[in-house]
Amino acid sequence: MQAGIIGLGLMGGSLGLDLQALGYFKNILGYDSNALHAQQALTLGLVDECVEFEKILECDVIFLAIPVEGIINCLQKMTSIKEEATIIDLGGAKHNIIKSVPQNIRKNFIAAHPMCGTEFYGPKASVKGLYENALVILCDLEDSGAHQVKLAKEIFLGIKARLVKMKSSEHDAHTAYISHLPHVLSYALANSVLKQKNPEIILSLAGGGFRDMSRISKSSPLMWKDIFKQNRDNILEAIEKCETEITQAKTWIKNNDYESLEKWMAQANKLQEFM
Amino acid sequence: MQAGIIGLGLMGGSLGLDLQALGYFKNILGYDSNALHAQQALTLGLVDECVEFEKILECDVIFLAIPVEGIINCLQKMTSIKEEATIIDLGGAKHNIIKSVPQNIRKNFIAAHPMCGTEFYGPKASVKGLYENALVILCDLEDSGAHQVKLAKEIFLGIKARLVKMKSSEHDAHTAYISHLPHVLSYALANSVLKQKNPEIILSLAGGGFRDMSRISKSSPLMWKDIFKQNRDNILEAIEKCETEITQAKTWIKNNDYESLEKWMAQANKLQEFM
Repeated sequence: MQAGIIGLGLMGGSLGLDLQALGYFKNILGYDSNALHAQQALTLGLVDECVEFEKILECDVIFLAIPVEGIINCLQKMTSIKEEATIIDLGGAKHNIIKSVPQNIRKNFIAAHPMCGTEFYGPKASVKGLYENALVILCDLEDSGAHQVKLAKEIFLGIKARLVKMKSSEHDAHTAYISHLPHVLSYALANSVLKQKNPEIILSLAGGGFRDMSRISKSSPLMWKDIFKQNRDNILEAIEKCETEITQAKTWIKNNDYESLEKWMAQANKLQEFM
Repeated sequence: MQAGIIGLGLMGGSLGLDLQALGYFKNILGYDSNALHAQQALTLGLVDECVEFEKILECDVIFLAIPVEGIINCLQKMTSIKEEATIIDLGGAKHNIIKSVPQNIRKNFIAAHPMCGTEFYGPKASVKGLYENALVILCDLEDSGAHQVKLAKEIFLGIKARLVKMKSSEHDAHTAYISHLPHVLSYALANSVLKQKNPEIILSLAGGGFRDMSRISKSSPLMWKDIFKQNRDNILEAIEKCETEITQAKTWIKNNDYESLEKWMAQANKLQEFM
């Protein structure tokens, strides 16, 4: 079997490394619309060969490791794949992607979202073992073919990911809170500090708390723009819920009501019971 | 010389471990108003001996490793120390603490803020080497005695911390952004998720981003209540600045203005140039 990876950045490049280690595929082809990235991926050994987009369509398993809008556009050009081919996308917002899949390849399609990554992006950000122990959310599997579901599960379990099944609507609602909202907060925190008079002095004081809170503000604007667009309503709701919490805290501080503030923080501490 | 540590939680307990390793003091006495914590600290070997508060006042160097309000209250009871004694506080908001120091012990007092810690608290949270490579901010040193300044620097450098000097007003303005605001955001994020219908399902999907962003929401409400109270005005300003950023992002998403959103995220990426 032959695997093809479209998009050779952090997610696609790391996948290439893990698929090579898996030894499941005869060879792993790669495609990136950015020629420099394709070259880097080859030099770094992320894939066996970089080919034209059309060549990828001949693969048995095709991974879409590009931003969400790219996935949606790409899927429209994938109607001439092998009959039993499996297309697996790794996008961070699932409902609109699934809606966009052309009907004649719907059974070939597996909607997957690996809950892993780093703040770095591009081929050079690729790391071996990125998927190890990562949670991969598989959505709306009832509309995928049995062969494709079996194969996708084998591959993800083979690269040591953990699997969970979910409706795409639930995925999008939950990830708005667990992934997308944290990114908005981190970008907002970074910009709040950068807009101060002497950001370099303030930032020189950073301890572990700020480092952790600002890490994902270094993430790819291109990728996140698409996610915010494609999960717009859920994200707006999550932001508003969080704004309410922040405003509440601010009001308590303003009113010198530190007892209520303390209770609110103690409530947040309950997170420890879950994780 | 004898050292005394008031408060044997994460900061005080870890300091006890590092001071023992330093070998600078004949012995290290500890005091904690919570008898259980004092017992735990002794069992864990964080200090050589636990004593009454009055006994601590006889030490050559006294560390105040308790919440900010506790520090302010404590300082009022410390007017009968040795003439050349050094009192070093580790509080997270400095201006009000310094204002509260009784005049006859002002030269004995060193205002220090170590920019380290974890989300855990209490004696059991203590770890060896917590201060290693940590930045310690020393404030308003011109009002401290030369002997006390020299000694405090020797101790902190001895436990491998890095030092920076700053006016307390600048400290409070900067830490509002680099430390206090991130805590508000983390507490708000945790509470946003915990208030959802099925937080356990949402939280089971958490990847590295959420883990990092929510880590400090597990921090001590008691300690943070005091910091928010004692740095009220700076924190309110920082929260408002960040609210503006969040609302701006929300408005762009609402208006489907993803280009502006992308530029805003790219601006946040500039954090990479500083840290």
